[in-house]
Formats: sequence, structure tokens, C-alpha cells
Amino acid sequence: MAANTETPHFKRMALIGVGLIGSSIALSAKRAGLVDNIVGCARTARTRAKAVELGIVDAMYEDPAVCVAGADLVIVCSHLGSYPAVGAAMAPGLAPGAIVTDVGSVKGCVARDLGPHIPDGVHLVPGHPVSGSEKSGPEAGFAELFDGRWWILTPGQDADGAVVERLTAFVRALGSRVEIMDAKRHDLVLAITSHLPHLIAYNIVGTADDMEAVTQGEVVKYSAGGFRDFTRIAASDPEFWRDVFLNNREAVLEMLGRLSEDLSGLQRAIRVGDGETLERLFTRTREIRRGVVEAGQAGHFIATEAGTKGSAEGEED
Amino acid sequence: MAANTETPHFKRMALIGVGLIGSSIALSAKRAGLVDNIVGCARTARTRAKAVELGIVDAMYEDPAVCVAGADLVIVCSHLGSYPAVGAAMAPGLAPGAIVTDVGSVKGCVARDLGPHIPDGVHLVPGHPVSGSEKSGPEAGFAELFDGRWWILTPGQDADGAVVERLTAFVRALGSRVEIMDAKRHDLVLAITSHLPHLIAYNIVGTADDMEAVTQGEVVKYSAGGFRDFTRIAASDPEFWRDVFLNNREAVLEMLGRLSEDLSGLQRAIRVGDGETLERLFTRTREIRRGVVEAGQAGHFIATEAGTKGSAEGEED
Repeated sequence: MAANTETPHFKRMALIGVGLIGSSIALSAKRAGLVDNIVGCARTARTRAKAVELGIVDAMYEDPAVCVAGADLVIVCSHLGSYPAVGAAMAPGLAPGAIVTDVGSVKGCVARDLGPHIPDGVHLVPGHPVSGSEKSGPEAGFAELFDGRWWILTPGQDADGAVVERLTAFVRALGSRVEIMDAKRHDLVLAITSHLPHLIAYNIVGTADDMEAVTQGEVVKYSAGGFRDFTRIAASDPEFWRDVFLNNREAVLEMLGRLSEDLSGLQRAIRVGDGETLERLFTRTREIRRGVVEAGQAGHFIATEAGTKGSAEGEED
Repeated sequence: MAANTETPHFKRMALIGVGLIGSSIALSAKRAGLVDNIVGCARTARTRAKAVELGIVDAMYEDPAVCVAGADLVIVCSHLGSYPAVGAAMAPGLAPGAIVTDVGSVKGCVARDLGPHIPDGVHLVPGHPVSGSEKSGPEAGFAELFDGRWWILTPGQDADGAVVERLTAFVRALGSRVEIMDAKRHDLVLAITSHLPHLIAYNIVGTADDMEAVTQGEVVKYSAGGFRDFTRIAASDPEFWRDVFLNNREAVLEMLGRLSEDLSGLQRAIRVGDGETLERLFTRTREIRRGVVEAGQAGHFIATEAGTKGSAEGEED
């Protein structure tokens, strides 16, 4: 699609949920001067107070309908499992002409769970910024989170072209690169690039935790041998990931089946001492790493008071 | 064991293999002023030339026996699969009283493969620095590689206490923390903290590469969702890891069996929509991450000309 050269502008952006992603959108939109006013909605008083205190939003509300009232851009940043309730709760407040999007990691379920609650004249265009952190909460947000990362939009067949273009320009102005994709394809691609890696990381860390022959202290002590990379992923928000797996069941199970088959092959190669099969696979996988590094998706750094932070082209494994 | 307060000193250190680990030992030993003379051995003329050109060693040799002649410390830094040949080749040159150690990721096989070649009066004390990189070759080495990491020594039952103490002091002076462990226990602990994470990373990257429904370009593009952490591990040296799996077969297969059982449980939870089981596991695994971060094993940074490099407490997944 054609690039929008005009800087997009919204009068009032309403964020349903101000965790890592919601607060990062707020900070990034401020940085780029894309919105006049930012309001947010959170279930707990603690989060509402925190978001105001940190200066992330201009106001916080408990009721989604009040939060979205008068907003020309509404971004649902809560867990996937909350969508049916959030949709029903905010519906009465949605202004005609508003654009509603979300940041969920599964896209097929958005039309099902939010769709029925969107009034005529309000535009639903689901989206997913492919970047995140094992950190959560409003204090985890930072304006650079989306810089150079992909933001996938999955507009339905009947989406308004001008609306999609406006939203595209907005997420580009947040620093992202944009891709338009079919929701079903999104869920298949993300099953292998994101959902399965998380499941496997949770799996291996859980197995290590269950072992009676090796203590947790030993696992922690020698984690620099590779394990620690899995612990980082496996420290991600539990509810968030529960909802991802429950909502992308089909694609995840399909990929998991293939992974298990391939793992059985490796198991056999080790058992019979077939070094050639092992070396062949280990050589092939190097190429993909090269692609990741060349595509600039290997990580980026954020300077913080505590020093440089980042998940970068690492030196160790 | 008691800490040795004296700085250990060797007249001549011989490195069999000057890849990432060998060259890092050389640079680190120079930094700490632990050796008068460093010599190395490599199979290829290219590596021999490179190691001299980079100033990592004082001299390079092709013949292991010539390389170890006159050395009071010999460190085998070549792949595990080369040990029987390396042992036989260097044996004629080993000086009485010399200490021979290695840096291999499996320890049970060292007594089997190097042991028979060690003459009386020469001391074999196997070792393993638990840190590494997906990079390889002499140009990948850096003096800080071992700083704050664990270096495991697995002396046999009949090892000379003074020798073990001297080697302990040496690897401490390289920046490491030292642990003395039984070789069999080492192989079990490392199977879960290092070998299995690598196997799983190779497995998932290989499965992604095989998929016809998702292109490699898509996998690379959206790798910031978690996959890229696996590609880094799966870019590690293929021959090195082939030898690890062939030499730690029993422990790896035991751990892999447990992992597969647990994975089947997760698969079932997703299939039947059992969110509670998923959330319970995902919550439990967070604790281990906390332990890794608190133990200071989450990563460290290396400032380079190209900027700061490191595998750190990451911001993203």
C-alpha cells in the first residue's frame, strides 16, 4: 500500500490497558506528537494511579465506556481473554467514526470477540506489534519499543481503505514497519516465530524445575550454558501467554506436532550415534541466524540509568 | 577447598586449539600476567596464521607433540571428537610434572579419551568454563569471556590435591568462579542447563526452516516475537555440538525423555483448553528467571568498536 506522507493526528487516544504495550504506545505517540490527549483504562486502582503518576496518560478511568467516549482512536491493550468483556463494556461509549484497534498476539479471535460489539460507523482494524518484553506493567513501557520492529495489521475484507491507511501511518509514526496480512496467516506465522518458542521455553524451564536429580541452585548457577536464554522468555506474563495458547490452539497444535516429530528424529540420531544427521541440522540452522541478523531483527539496546539494557546480538550462549 | 591467595604462574602454556575459548584463555591469561609464554596448535594454516597475526600466541605449531614440549600447562581446547587423536599425538611431547586440562562441555569422556595417553608424572584434571558464544575462531576471543562465570573442574579420585589447587587458582585468576564436581554429575547438570537448550533451539529453528506454509523470509521478519533468541543459540558451532551430543548421550536422552513427557502434557492442556494448567506452569517458571538474574548469570556486556555487545538482561521477547 502507498505510504502516507502526512503525519497522522488523533485528538483523543483511549488505551484499554496500560501495561508494557499500552504505556509504550502512549510514550511513543507523545514523542512523535501524534495525539492531543491520551486517556487510559485499567481494572486496578494501583495501575490507574501508577499510569497517572508516571505521566503516561492525561487521565485514567475504570469504566471502558467512559474511557473511550469522544476518542477517535481506541487501542485495546488488555489480555486476549478480556476481549469479549472489554468489547461489551466499551461499546456504549464508542464515538461514530472512531478507529478501534488492538495489540493482541493472536488475530483470528479479534473479529470473533470484539467484532460483535463494534457499532456501525466505528472501524475495527486488528493489529499486532511484534515486539515485547518479559517485563509487564506501566513502569515497563518505553517510547523506543517499536522502533524498527514490525507491526502487523489484519483488516477484514470489508475494511475501509482510508481507515487502514490512517492507522498504518500512525503505527509507522510510532517507529514501526508495517505489514498488512490476513488474520489466519498471521496466526500461523506467529505460531512458529513466537508462540511455540515461548511454549518450549516454558516447557524446558518447567522440566528443569521438576528435576530431583539436579537442584534449582545448580540450574541457576550454570545457566550461562544456554538455559538462561530460555528463562528470560519463560519469565513472560503468565496470563498473557495462557490466553495466546487458548486463542491460537489450532495453529500451535499443528506446529507442535511437527516439532515433536522432528525432535523424535533428533532423539534417534543421538541414540544411534548418527553424527552426520546432527551436524547437517546444526549447519542448516546457522543460515537462519544470519538472516535474522541481516534483517536487523537481532535486538536493540536501550540506555537506562542502570546501564545499557537490551537483547542484542549476544556474545554468549 | 581453600582459596589460593598466591597468583599462579606458568612458564609455558600450550593451547591445543585456538578457537573462541582457546584464544580467550590466552588473552585473559595475558591480562592477568599468569604466563611467560603462550604457544598454540591448530590443524589449519589459516588458523595458525590468524592466531599469530592477532597476537594471541607467541608461536603456533601444527604438531601437538612439538606444541606441548616444555609446557607446564597444556589446555586442550579442540572439539571433543578430536580428543583420542589429540591425546595420542601430544603424548610424546608432554613434560614430566605438566598439568593437562581441557575445556570440553562433556567431562565423563575425558578420562576415557585423553586419560590413556597421559604419561605417569603428568597430571590430568578435566575442566569446563560454562560460558561461550555462537561465534567461533580465534578472532572471536576476548579477555572478559570468563569474568564472573563458573569454571567447573572434575578431577579424578586419584588427583593430586596441590595440582587441583594450582589449576583452581589459575582459572580464578582468569576471572572465573570455580566449582569442583564429579564428572558424571557435571554431565547430568549440563545436560539440562546447556545441552538440551541447544538441542531444542536447533530443533525449533530446523522445523521452521522445513515449513512450506511459512517462508523463511517471514520467520526472519517476525523473529522478534521470541524466535530470534533460539536462532542465536542455534547458530553455534555444528561440529562442536555434534560431539557434545555423541559424548553425553545417556544424560541427554534421559532429560529429553522427561522434556517430551512434559511437552505432551502441555499439548493436551492446549487441546482441551485447560488454561489453569498453562497458567500454573507459566507462573512457576518466572521464579527461576528471578534466580538467574539474582545470581548474576543473566548476561554481561562487552564494549566493542561497533558498540556495546552482550547477551544481557533483555528488554524484549
